[in-house]
Formats: sequence, structure tokens, C-alpha cells
Amino acid sequence: MNARSAIILDLKFARGELRETIQGFFPDREIVDLADPANAGRDLSGIAYAVVWKPDADLFRRAPDLELLFSGGAGVDHIMAVEGIPDIPIVRFVDRNLTTRMSEWVVLQCLIHLRRVLPYLEQQQKRIWSEFLQPEAAEVTVGLMGLGVLGLDAAAKLKALGFDVIGWSRTKKQIEGMETFDAAGMDDFLSRTDFLVGLLPLTPETTGLYDRALFSRLRQGGALKKPVFINAGRGGSQNEADLYAALADGTLGGASVDVFQVEPLPETSPLWGLGNLVITPHAAAPSEPAALFQLMQDQIGRYERGETLQFTIDRAAGY
Amino acid sequence: MNARSAIILDLKFARGELRETIQGFFPDREIVDLADPANAGRDLSGIAYAVVWKPDADLFRRAPDLELLFSGGAGVDHIMAVEGIPDIPIVRFVDRNLTTRMSEWVVLQCLIHLRRVLPYLEQQQKRIWSEFLQPEAAEVTVGLMGLGVLGLDAAAKLKALGFDVIGWSRTKKQIEGMETFDAAGMDDFLSRTDFLVGLLPLTPETTGLYDRALFSRLRQGGALKKPVFINAGRGGSQNEADLYAALADGTLGGASVDVFQVEPLPETSPLWGLGNLVITPHAAAPSEPAALFQLMQDQIGRYERGETLQFTIDRAAGY
Ligand SMILES: NC(=O)c1ccc[n+]([C@@H]2O[C@H](COP(=O)([O-])OP(=O)(O)OC[C@H]3O[C@@H](n4cnc5c(N)ncnc54)[C@H](OP(=O)(O)O)[C@@H]3O)[C@@H](O)[C@H]2O)c1
Ligand SMILES: NC(=O)c1ccc[n+]([C@@H]2O[C@H](COP(=O)([O-])OP(=O)(O)OC[C@H]3O[C@@H](n4cnc5c(N)ncnc54)[C@H](OP(=O)(O)O)[C@@H]3O)[C@@H](O)[C@H]2O)c1
Repeated sequence: MNARSAIILDLKFARGELRETIQGFFPDREIVDLADPANAGRDLSGIAYAVVWKPDADLFRRAPDLELLFSGGAGVDHIMAVEGIPDIPIVRFVDRNLTTRMSEWVVLQCLIHLRRVLPYLEQQQKRIWSEFLQPEAAEVTVGLMGLGVLGLDAAAKLKALGFDVIGWSRTKKQIEGMETFDAAGMDDFLSRTDFLVGLLPLTPETTGLYDRALFSRLRQGGALKKPVFINAGRGGSQNEADLYAALADGTLGGASVDVFQVEPLPETSPLWGLGNLVITPHAAAPSEPAALFQLMQDQIGRYERGETLQFTIDRAAGY
Repeated sequence: MNARSAIILDLKFARGELRETIQGFFPDREIVDLADPANAGRDLSGIAYAVVWKPDADLFRRAPDLELLFSGGAGVDHIMAVEGIPDIPIVRFVDRNLTTRMSEWVVLQCLIHLRRVLPYLEQQQKRIWSEFLQPEAAEVTVGLMGLGVLGLDAAAKLKALGFDVIGWSRTKKQIEGMETFDAAGMDDFLSRTDFLVGLLPLTPETTGLYDRALFSRLRQGGALKKPVFINAGRGGSQNEADLYAALADGTLGGASVDVFQVEPLPETSPLWGLGNLVITPHAAAPSEPAALFQLMQDQIGRYERGETLQFTIDRAAGY
């Protein structure tokens, strides 16, 4: 425990006055903003807390006395990718606003494909008035991969709109009004899924998971004829060459993707040129800095009072 | 009462084998399909029932013994527009499937504008990766005009997604968790509305209601800066020249319209050329023939058993 310790701020997403905002939550503590060139060579020993997003490889060497690490986002893959992470609790960002926004995005993308928004917009360009096949939500099974904070909220809202929802997670879940599967039930799960929605963290197990083989196991011949792939977890879980091929050859009828192997998605990616794909720029559920700093204030308070921390990740599972 | 009366079928939307489908619901009755040229000059006297969509002007003269009239859709404006409607009950189409589909459409359109789908798609065309202002649903007030079967279902689903929802109807309503207004509260209602959603029937009172004056009373400077107009009631309620002007000059930030003054929307309409408008071809909530004929079977049964009819319209109110 290190009361009144300074806090290292290393958030590589520029969004307004981060330093002023975090200082407001911690008026008595020094904030060491690594984005400030003045802190380039600074001695970080003795500092107990850090909040990071894509930390530099030498952070943990430079700051040997960290006791608590906060992730600037819901995922921690950007931390786990760094060598030499100390054996201290890692608290991830969980927030009502972020969760709500993600569910808006997921429901929106499911409705976009259900109600054929892309073909309708294409027709509109050509001034064509003609109705497409557009089954009702209940005729479409949404298969959710990931039943964590985000997956469960999205499931409830998809069900409110009438979709048939099934779910898949690492450990088997018991959820009212929803059939669930674990690793052993993967085949069953995929073969019943019309819209695959990915809300998985990036871990060694989920890296490259969404590939050609997986796309071809989704249900063909459902109410919309072809399956749809929707991903807002992490780009590292998808094989983009396979995604391109599946969209181009009709294995998939459409897709919506918010996250990519390389972000920003390079201008040269062939994905940009596909007419049946919706691309959003990792904007499904932005982290609100104020909410993040509020969570840090709460958790540092708990830590310094000797209480149990919330939202800590499982180091072995990697999320 | 006229047991085993024939049924006049006059649905001017061609969708599969209508005659065979209705016959399946009424195996013992003759179905007189006015789309069949053989019935052109046919004597319709003695027939008690008819189901119609945009009936010909002479229908009621040709069929003087009608006792019950069914509308092929949720609205009855296509019937009320005909001269000499007999003073008999008019039953409109109310159906779970239709209601659900309408709510899908309304939620989809609200999310499209909230989450900036049109600007994102435009950026995608240009391979640009950049995030827009996209407030959360709770920061946007959806003002629903029409709190009938469709409006109430849409309200519940919009609230499930987190939108702030207020409502307006002819008679004042008391609805849990939702502020409501009637004619007297129109100013208040409009000035608080960011997304105006129209689910009104077409009546003399609602004809031309959505005009320049109304658009300019919506809230400017809300979370998305500019108001949005969404209409799936009837095209006759909107002034399309005013809608075009309001979208072109920035009074409205965007719109989604499913219904038009003239349908199909003429190729020459300038609305087709607007980049901040989503056009769907009166496809928000199609009537399923089987559900319509099921409703007719139920209501003709009630009528012939001397029971009270359901879903009859109020002739004085016109809906
Ligand atoms: N695009 C964006 O804007 C955005 C924003 C926020 C978050 N995200 C991403 O969304 C992810 C999920 O967030 P969350 O808050 O819902 O996380 P969470 O609460 O930790 O839930 C993760 C879910 O994934 C499941 N899972 C993990 N590894 C698995 C595996 N190998 N096989 C099967 N299931 C597995 C977990 O299973 P168990 O239930 O068995 O543990 C759990 O259900 C984050 O990690 C982040 O990458 C993206
Ligand atoms: N685009 C499509 O595919 C599609 C499909 C189906 C229906 N529709 C349209 O949607 C309309 C509504 O359907 P519904 O089933 O919800 O009808 P409904 O149950 O009869 O409800 C109509 C609502 O509009 C209100 N209203 C009527 N006249 C008004 C006025 N002058 N001022 C204020 N409010 C007024 C009514 O007020 P009170 O509550 O006070 O009576 C009621 O709340 C139909 O009439 C049809 O035109 C379109």
C-alpha cells in the first residue's frame, strides 16, 4: 500500500484534456503523463499506480514499484502483449455507458443485415423502389461468442427486439431464456447460427479464431439464406484474408466489423472495397475518460482501505 | 348476419397466391377475387364480407349488401378516401408480426442516425478511418407521434435500447415511464424532440402535418446538434417539398422515410438525391396475408356468433 502515490498516465488515445480530467479525480496526487515529453527520462520508481493503453515495452522496467495496473479499455490484450508484466492485480474498464454503446452497435448491425440496409441504400442510389426479402427477427438466430459483461447486455437487447439468441463462452453458463454452449458444443452452436456476433477478448485461444473453417460451419439456408459475421471484440481474432474470401465468394452474405488486425485499417486493405461489409473505426464502444478515472478512484480507494478489488482479470485465462 | 356468405377479395398488392391462401382459411365459402378479369362485371349483391386495399370507387355501389369490411393493412385511409362507404363496421389489420417488424424498422432508423451510419458509409467508400460524434441513446429524446398499437410497441423497444422517449397522441395517455402530450402540449413536445418518429394514421387532421413549420419547432442543438425526422405512418402526412428543403438547408440533420405522398416515389423526386435521407419502399411492416386472413376468420366467426368485433375503427375519428 502506498497512500498518495503518484499515478502514471499512459493512454495512447488522445481525447480532450486527459490530464486535467484525471487530476480532477485525484486532486492530491501527482499525475505523471507519459505523453508529456518532459517525462521522457523520468524516474518512475516508487509509483504504485498506472493506467495504460498499449504501454511501451520498457514501462514495467522503468516503473518497478507498481502495485496496481489499470487498463484504459475493456480489453487487456494490449497489456498482455508486453513482456515482463509484474505479478500485480490488473483492473480492466467496465462501465455502464461503454456497455450500452456496445449493445447499440450490436443491435444496429444485426438490424442492418436483417432489414437489408446496404441493398436498400444501393437501390436508393439508383432510384429503384422494390422490396427485398426481410424476415422478422424471430426467424434469425444470433449466435453470441462471448457472454461476459458486453455479451450478456447485447443478448438481452437483441431478445427485446425479437431475435432468437444463443450463446457461447469458455465456461458453460446457465442463462434464463437463452440456450448456451461451451467449447465442446461449438459445432452445434455454429451450425445453428445465422448472425455470428463476436464479443470475445483477444487471448492466445481466440487469436485467429474467425477463419474460413469457422465461417463455413455457420448455417447456410436460414431465413436470410446466408450467414452474417459481426465482430466488435478484437481484430486479432479474425483472419482478414479469410473474411475477404468468405464475403467475396458468398460463404458469408454480409459482415460488420469494428476491429481489425491492424488499426487504423490500412488504405490498401481489400476489405474497404466490399459492398456487403460495414466497417466502423473501432468506434463501437469508446471508453469515456471520466468514467475510467471514476473507476480508478473507486478501486484505488478500495485498495488503500484494504478491500477487495473489482474487475480484476484472471492472469491465467488472459482476460 | 349472412352465414356462408361469399367474400370479396380486392387486395391491390400482389404477393404470392392470395386466392389460394384465403380459400384455405374459408374452405366452405366462395372467394370472389376482383383481380380475376372473369369477375369484372360480376353481380356482387348478396355478399356480406370484403377485404380491400385501395378499393375501386364503384365497389360499394356494386356490393350493396356488405355487412363487414376488412382493411388489408393497418391503416384505413385507402378506404376512407372512397365515396359512399356504407355505415358498417370496418375492421383494420392488427397483428403481432406487423407490429414487431415496425418496431424493428423504427429502432433501426433511430440507431442509424444516432450512430451516424450514413456518414460512416460515406467515409468507408473513401477508405477513411475516423470517429464521429456519436452520443449514447440516453442523450437523445425520441418524440413519438402516435401512441397506438405501433407507437406503444416501438416506445417500449426504444426504451430497452436506452433512448429517452416521449409521446404525443390525440387523446391524453398515462404511460408508465414515459412523458406524454396531447394536442395542447404540441409545442412543448416538439421543442424537446431530437428524433421525431411519425406513426400516425392519415386523417384530415394529420394530412400535411409534417411541414416546414413543424420541422423548425424541433429541438436544435441537442446531443446530435440537429433534429431527425422518421416517418412510417403515411406519406400524406408529410409535405415533401418542405422535407426536401429542411434536409437541404440543415433544419433537419437527417431523415428516414418509408411512406410517400405518391408511391412508388416517382423517379423524378428530388428526395432520391439527398445524402442524409434513408428511403425504404413502404416496406417497414408488410402485411402477411396469412395473418390477415386469420384475423378475418376470427372476426367473421365472432360476427356470426353475435359476439363483439375487435379492431373496428372509429368512423368519426377516421382511424
Ligand atoms: N470494439 C470496441 O469498441 C470494444 C469496446 C469494449 C470492449 N471490446 C472487446 O470486447 C471484449 C469483451 O468484453 P467484456 O467486457 O464482455 O469481457 P468479459 O466480461 O471478460 O467477457 C469475455 C467473454 O468471452 C468469453 N471467452 C473468453 N475466452 C474464451 C474462449 N477461449 N472461448 C470461449 N469464450 C471465451 C468469456 O468466457 P467466460 O464467461 O467463460 O469467462 C466471457 O464470456 C473485450 O475483451 C474487448 O476486447 C471492444
Ligand atoms: N409503413 C408501413 O409499412 C405501415 C404499416 C402499418 C401501419 N402503418 C401506418 O401506421 C399507422 C398507425 O398504426 P397503429 O396500428 O399504431 O394505429 P392506431 O392503433 O389506431 O394508433 C394511432 C395513433 O395515432 C394517434 N392519432 C391519430 N390521429 C391523431 C391526431 N390527429 N393527433 C394526434 N394523434 C393522433 C392516435 O391517438 P389516440 O391514441 O388518442 O387515438 C393513436 O395513438 C396506421 O394508420 C398506418 O397508416 C404503416
